[in-house]
Amino acid sequence: MQKLKQIIEQSDTRSGKVFDYVIQAMIILSLVSFSIETLPDLSADSRKTLKAIEIICIAVFTVEYIARIIVATNKPTFIFSFFGIIDALAILPFYLASGLDLRSIRSFRLLRLIRIMKLARYNAAAKRFHRAFIIAKEEIVLFLFASLIVLYLAAAGIYHFENPAQPEKFSSIFHSLWWAVTTLTTVGYGDMYPVTAGGRLFTFFVLVIGLGIVAIPAGLVASALSKAREMED
Amino acid sequence: MQKLKQIIEQSDTRSGKVFDYVIQAMIILSLVSFSIETLPDLSADSRKTLKAIEIICIAVFTVEYIARIIVATNKPTFIFSFFGIIDALAILPFYLASGLDLRSIRSFRLLRLIRIMKLARYNAAAKRFHRAFIIAKEEIVLFLFASLIVLYLAAAGIYHFENPAQPEKFSSIFHSLWWAVTTLTTVGYGDMYPVTAGGRLFTFFVLVIGLGIVAIPAGLVASALSKAREMED
Amino acid sequence: MQKLKQIIEQSDTRSGKVFDYVIQAMIILSLVSFSIETLPDLSADSRKTLKAIEIICIAVFTVEYIARIIVATNKPTFIFSFFGIIDALAILPFYLASGLDLRSIRSFRLLRLIRIMKLARYNAAAKRFHRAFIIAKEEIVLFLFASLIVLYLAAAGIYHFENPAQPEKFSSIFHSLWWAVTTLTTVGYGDMYPVTAGGRLFTFFVLVIGLGIVAIPAGLVASALSKAREMED
Amino acid sequence: MQKLKQIIEQSDTRSGKVFDYVIQAMIILSLVSFSIETLPDLSADSRKTLKAIEIICIAVFTVEYIARIIVATNKPTFIFSFFGIIDALAILPFYLASGLDLRSIRSFRLLRLIRIMKLARYNAAAKRFHRAFIIAKEEIVLFLFASLIVLYLAAAGIYHFENPAQPEKFSSIFHSLWWAVTTLTTVGYGDMYPVTAGGRLFTFFVLVIGLGIVAIPAGLVASALSKAREMED
Repeated sequence: MQKLKQIIEQSDTRSGKVFDYVIQAMIILSLVSFSIETLPDLSADSRKTLKAIEIICIAVFTVEYIARIIVATNKPTFIFSFFGIIDALAILPFYLASGLDLRSIRSFRLLRLIRIMKLARYNAAAKRFHRAFIIAKEEIVLFLFASLIVLYLAAAGIYHFENPAQPEKFSSIFHSLWWAVTTLTTVGYGDMYPVTAGGRLFTFFVLVIGLGIVAIPAGLVASALSKAREMED
Repeated sequence: MQKLKQIIEQSDTRSGKVFDYVIQAMIILSLVSFSIETLPDLSADSRKTLKAIEIICIAVFTVEYIARIIVATNKPTFIFSFFGIIDALAILPFYLASGLDLRSIRSFRLLRLIRIMKLARYNAAAKRFHRAFIIAKEEIVLFLFASLIVLYLAAAGIYHFENPAQPEKFSSIFHSLWWAVTTLTTVGYGDMYPVTAGGRLFTFFVLVIGLGIVAIPAGLVASALSKAREMED
Repeated sequence: MQKLKQIIEQSDTRSGKVFDYVIQAMIILSLVSFSIETLPDLSADSRKTLKAIEIICIAVFTVEYIARIIVATNKPTFIFSFFGIIDALAILPFYLASGLDLRSIRSFRLLRLIRIMKLARYNAAAKRFHRAFIIAKEEIVLFLFASLIVLYLAAAGIYHFENPAQPEKFSSIFHSLWWAVTTLTTVGYGDMYPVTAGGRLFTFFVLVIGLGIVAIPAGLVASALSKAREMED
Repeated sequence: MQKLKQIIEQSDTRSGKVFDYVIQAMIILSLVSFSIETLPDLSADSRKTLKAIEIICIAVFTVEYIARIIVATNKPTFIFSFFGIIDALAILPFYLASGLDLRSIRSFRLLRLIRIMKLARYNAAAKRFHRAFIIAKEEIVLFLFASLIVLYLAAAGIYHFENPAQPEKFSSIFHSLWWAVTTLTTVGYGDMYPVTAGGRLFTFFVLVIGLGIVAIPAGLVASALSKAREMED
């Protein structure tokens, strides 16, 4: 029992490392098989193999979850901790899906992606992000809010300029919001763009003012991360 | 009277907070209804509901404006202050629109967006932006001006290279300015791009030199904001 | 004579300021008229007006140039200084064009843009850029060179992957360089993009590695500019 | 012998500089000729000239390689050093290609690009990159890993939203990964973009969260480079 606890909860022993690597490999494997499942024109044989891999992964994760509960010093604390919930959510969809109608399976399948959160346990970057987020929380929320206002004003403005010229593309402020998002993040797919002189001049001003504002939350995350790193040292 | 002043101007009491939240909710509601109005194919019933919401919002904002004037220690100071003017502009379009010709309503409707500025009263980000802008004002103007020169030279150059090959797209320097804006901000919609070898080589040099220059105003805003934050502490 | 010198070379007196503003207005005016000239379908009357504006501007710049030579303490030093040469180049194309064949006028006209450099005399941003460039010269050259190698390798690689699938678009390494430029600067016009799995995987790696390298010269300019500003204080 | 060593290994004497410049010129020449070879519709004469240039370059690089071995104090150390291996790989493909089947030449030809690595010997930027990479190695790997997870989740999510609407474009998670790469790097070619309201809202959230994460590895490289520079001083 004491040895099982060591294997599961400590990663500096040899067997502890092997356990960690096996779990990580199973997570990656289950994600890869999840992705392959979405390929069109899969043969029935491939589907069967994927189903088998899925069942094996679920079995391993279930054993892991039960083992983690068993070795936990304080069982309820573990079950309602962040990773306890993630571990439960990673296996729950499978058991629930068996009892559910098949038509709802499409949206349901996406829940299997929660498994990727299990990787966070081994990922120092995730911990640092979490710490950085706590440091800069208030500011990030503040400037996300400012970004939302800029996005909204950009959408309302471009709607005003472009709706008469392209009523089928800029058909409402909601449709124009998509343009505002792709333009202010500089993605610029090219599915919507202004064609009138007024709309283009407006876009110029929106970009001049907006790029500085929309870029700020990303900058805040970056500087908070460097603070989080200093706190680690 | 003293109690009304407390509710309106202070946000640390319970009733003050409720008042603030109600006003904020009304602003958001009026913006959402403004956006829904732009949707094509709205039923007559929906239009009626939106009209009703608009009238309610205007009523609330009018009462708020009058209340703020009443409780203000120095009435003219409030009326001609930044938020005093914004509050007036937020309700004025409605009252004026009733007496105006309906055909001009399209441009006029946009004035309703001024209401969004009322949110700035509750937004610490807006205050920080304002302070940051004062800090970096001279520099931002300086480099915006340098960016304008870069944009102009890029437009004149690409016009020279691409006009003979694509006379309908790069038909003048003014049309080419749109290309310069979308390229130097790296949005790149793909509606205009050089096809000649000369134009492409020119674009390469413009990007190498221009990206550094155009990105500087955004950087100046970011560093001014961090200075503004330090001043707050 | 002493007064003329004051008006031209000093900008803190009233008449000196007026002189500066007149010259700046003439530069802007001549650039705007240059741009309007490129508009297609201009009437004969408009062309005549533009021609007249051009002659007036040239006359003013010529008078300015002669006046600057007259008041210069050391005449040859001014004539061969940066702004002395710019002032000469700003008027020279006009006088030369009269004696030249008209067919060559297209490329020649572009030389009129040199006038924009006259604005640099009044632009503190230009001076700061110049100082920043001297500070970071060696580094910028170093990383521009590294960027060129990355661009070349990206072009050679994508040519290898995409040429068999899209021979008309990725028809040689030179054509692929255009793709490399638009992709690594994240402009992404959408005129050329990989369609094969290999080309897309290669693009992913190019972006992961390349974005960091290509963004560095811009970052170097920004940090050199902040150093240049500190030196000014 | 001692003089040959000086010429090859030292670049502060006159003959040493000439040697370096000749080798660099040959590398550039061989890369340019490699690129020209890819042009379609080359005449037989051009092909012959390119072949001749290739043979001359290979001859020079072979002589250089042998000379470097001869003057090396410790021959095996040089041969198995980074630049010893690069020098060998730069000429090897040519000698091997003569004995190989011609059909495989296409992929093989790409190996000639290894020659570009010979330039790194003269490039201080390459050395600084190497040092910066060692400084930030652990962090870069950490955040590249986090970026991969973000890319994967973005791809899985957009597949879920867009597959029913555009089954031929978002046909699997693997196909959607290409969308995730071009969107989160803000390249935005426009070959794939969401059209459903759900997909667009998802894209908005992906961009808000993802831009900060994907931009971090580039920022880490930049700050590691400035540390590397400080270490040089």
